[in-house]
Amino acid sequence: MSATLQDPATLTASEAAEAIAAGRLSAEALVRACLDRIVARDAAVQAWAFLDPDLALAQARAADRSARRGPLHGVPVGLKDIIDTYDMPTQCNSPIWAGRRPYADSACAAAIRAAGGVILGKTVTTEFANRHPGPTRHPMDPERTPGGSSSGSAAAVADHQVPLAIGTQTSGSMIRPAAFCGIWGYKPSFGEISRVGVFQQSGSLDTLGFCARSLEDVQRLRAVMLRLPYQPVSAAPTAPRIALCRTPQWNQASAAAQSALEDAARRLAAAGARVTELELPPALFGDWLSVHRRIANFESARNFGHERHRHRDMLSKDLGEGRIRDGEATPLEAYVAAQRSAEAMRAWAEDALSGLDAVLTLPAAGEAPKGLSETGNATFNSLWTMLYTPCLTLPFGSGPGGMPLGVQLVSQRHEDERLFATAGWVANTLRE
Amino acid sequence: MSATLQDPATLTASEAAEAIAAGRLSAEALVRACLDRIVARDAAVQAWAFLDPDLALAQARAADRSARRGPLHGVPVGLKDIIDTYDMPTQCNSPIWAGRRPYADSACAAAIRAAGGVILGKTVTTEFANRHPGPTRHPMDPERTPGGSSSGSAAAVADHQVPLAIGTQTSGSMIRPAAFCGIWGYKPSFGEISRVGVFQQSGSLDTLGFCARSLEDVQRLRAVMLRLPYQPVSAAPTAPRIALCRTPQWNQASAAAQSALEDAARRLAAAGARVTELELPPALFGDWLSVHRRIANFESARNFGHERHRHRDMLSKDLGEGRIRDGEATPLEAYVAAQRSAEAMRAWAEDALSGLDAVLTLPAAGEAPKGLSETGNATFNSLWTMLYTPCLTLPFGSGPGGMPLGVQLVSQRHEDERLFATAGWVANTLRE
Repeated sequence: MSATLQDPATLTASEAAEAIAAGRLSAEALVRACLDRIVARDAAVQAWAFLDPDLALAQARAADRSARRGPLHGVPVGLKDIIDTYDMPTQCNSPIWAGRRPYADSACAAAIRAAGGVILGKTVTTEFANRHPGPTRHPMDPERTPGGSSSGSAAAVADHQVPLAIGTQTSGSMIRPAAFCGIWGYKPSFGEISRVGVFQQSGSLDTLGFCARSLEDVQRLRAVMLRLPYQPVSAAPTAPRIALCRTPQWNQASAAAQSALEDAARRLAAAGARVTELELPPALFGDWLSVHRRIANFESARNFGHERHRHRDMLSKDLGEGRIRDGEATPLEAYVAAQRSAEAMRAWAEDALSGLDAVLTLPAAGEAPKGLSETGNATFNSLWTMLYTPCLTLPFGSGPGGMPLGVQLVSQRHEDERLFATAGWVANTLRE
Repeated sequence: MSATLQDPATLTASEAAEAIAAGRLSAEALVRACLDRIVARDAAVQAWAFLDPDLALAQARAADRSARRGPLHGVPVGLKDIIDTYDMPTQCNSPIWAGRRPYADSACAAAIRAAGGVILGKTVTTEFANRHPGPTRHPMDPERTPGGSSSGSAAAVADHQVPLAIGTQTSGSMIRPAAFCGIWGYKPSFGEISRVGVFQQSGSLDTLGFCARSLEDVQRLRAVMLRLPYQPVSAAPTAPRIALCRTPQWNQASAAAQSALEDAARRLAAAGARVTELELPPALFGDWLSVHRRIANFESARNFGHERHRHRDMLSKDLGEGRIRDGEATPLEAYVAAQRSAEAMRAWAEDALSGLDAVLTLPAAGEAPKGLSETGNATFNSLWTMLYTPCLTLPFGSGPGGMPLGVQLVSQRHEDERLFATAGWVANTLRE
């Protein structure tokens, strides 16, 4: 390879797909470049729970032999290790599921294959996408967490080990690690993307999401997941209506995160955006954290039926004594009341966000913290997960430790395309 | 056994659980009685997709050896063959899943085991709980369908082969077969009972339900599923407020079904119930059938990703060329619009049902029809599935062919206990 050629591992998925479609790059060369990068970096980052280079290369060669099948033809994707594939194990970072080989592909794995994509391997999750961490480290600092629960997905994409990866979010498991790692993270509107074949914690909250290195890549993967034609929206041509939302948990954010968000708001306003402020009414949102917790824990205690009944001693203390124990003690009435509160909050948000292109808010409390025993604070994410709104985080600024910060944009439910158009304008503006 | 003793297979689950708890019956004797009944009747009814007598008896003997674990201690339960168990196959009545052995129990199987219950076996489903029928026949007439998709669950319970069985409903798959077979059928409020380990067609509609021979049994199994203390509600002491709802599809019901429902309404009114009529506003409900269809089909087309991508030729024409093809052609905008319509209908129902104890409506268009090539009309069920309301059907009257008819009661979402209290009063009244 000539020194002037870009390493294929550093291409975005869209650049790679276009190069493959044009015959300038083979899927095999792309996958080899990703595998080489993993070999060089795996000891430091530890993003992969399962990786079989021969299987990945066989998929790539099959893509090279076949006609173009879709927008991801020949492009590798990582799957969080709670997502089933028929040809690789799914182990959920739990000894209970060690060695488990699913019978079938998850709907998202099947959609990637149908679009010509290569399933590169499984990325490290916290235990069952909950809190107990896996081995993955931040690509920029091995003493820091990459965030979680989609730890490996975010770290692998940020570290150029794979251009795209799928994660999930029940509290803040998708947006937070993407922000920590300095990449794009996307949580779609709740309910649009199939969760078949994905380990379930909370049916009312669990949402698949994506890690990517460009907004175009987010849109490309969404079209594949929804099995719709790939028609990316352009950046909004006119300045959007944006509301800064500090949330009631503002005081949990670091000074650097607070000032980055306020700086972003000022710069967007200076570029012509109509920037207002959005306050969550205290009467409705005063106990939103406990509403989220009651829903998540009641459902988890029942969804983990097999693990509770047959393998309770193999659950971490975090999960077995924490979430599950709390959910077991939650009465049905408290769960139903929490569901009704969440519905009322969603109805408020549907109305409050209808006149906005996006809310501008924090994706995390600050930069990735030091230490590997936990994956950071999900407070700035759980709210939007429960509100079912589409969310995007994009990198902006850095913290006192030199780690990336981000800003999160949130639109009305089912207005994901409006969110993309707004995010395009915001990214262009903040880049200037 | 003395001729004066009742065959244990004819006991309800509650009678059996109490006899076992009192030491008057062993789990092994109960399971043997069910197995004997199956041996005698299986050639005619064909309700079981998987049955291993030794495995069932081993579970029963283990229950007999252990202290009482819960309200189903020693009681056998059948599971529709789309529900996972770690020790039996789950095959979905599809060659694609032939021989599949799940890695783990579904949440509902784990809950039954945690309550001391015996998983007797897997009951026949239509292909993937969709329309293409299995071999099961109506216990009272082998030329008639038992209904579907929970065909084996309803037939086995009605035929005294097992006292309880679990089914699912996406359109009318739980209430209709129960009505056809002359037993109690229950579809809980959407979202309360875990669906982990249950094959998913439509995440927005799929709901687990129960087949039983008494209202007490329905409540017993619900407490087990929700992992709550078993505290059955008594029949309402005062006459309830009931609204007769013919639905816009009234003209699809047989004359016998229409007059049975109107007769029931008259008898309830004569006993003191305040009986009004509920009309669904045409502006809101005019296209409810297509709203349901768009949601179910859009989601199914994506959820069946593995089957579509790898085994399309092994899907029935009903499913592959019907629901999935239609869902593939449904744009995201049409799906989102349908979801918004369904939400508006649910908001209307929440309000309209708030002043009622129950709606009285048809569980099916009539008695079980002749022929085994389809499982009957789901029109009188899909509406309530989409409205997320709890539903109960109980046997009442019979059709021109001598087959059972039923009446369906529906309460406001999350008011399942009010529904039970009302159903107790209704059942007592209609029995007189």
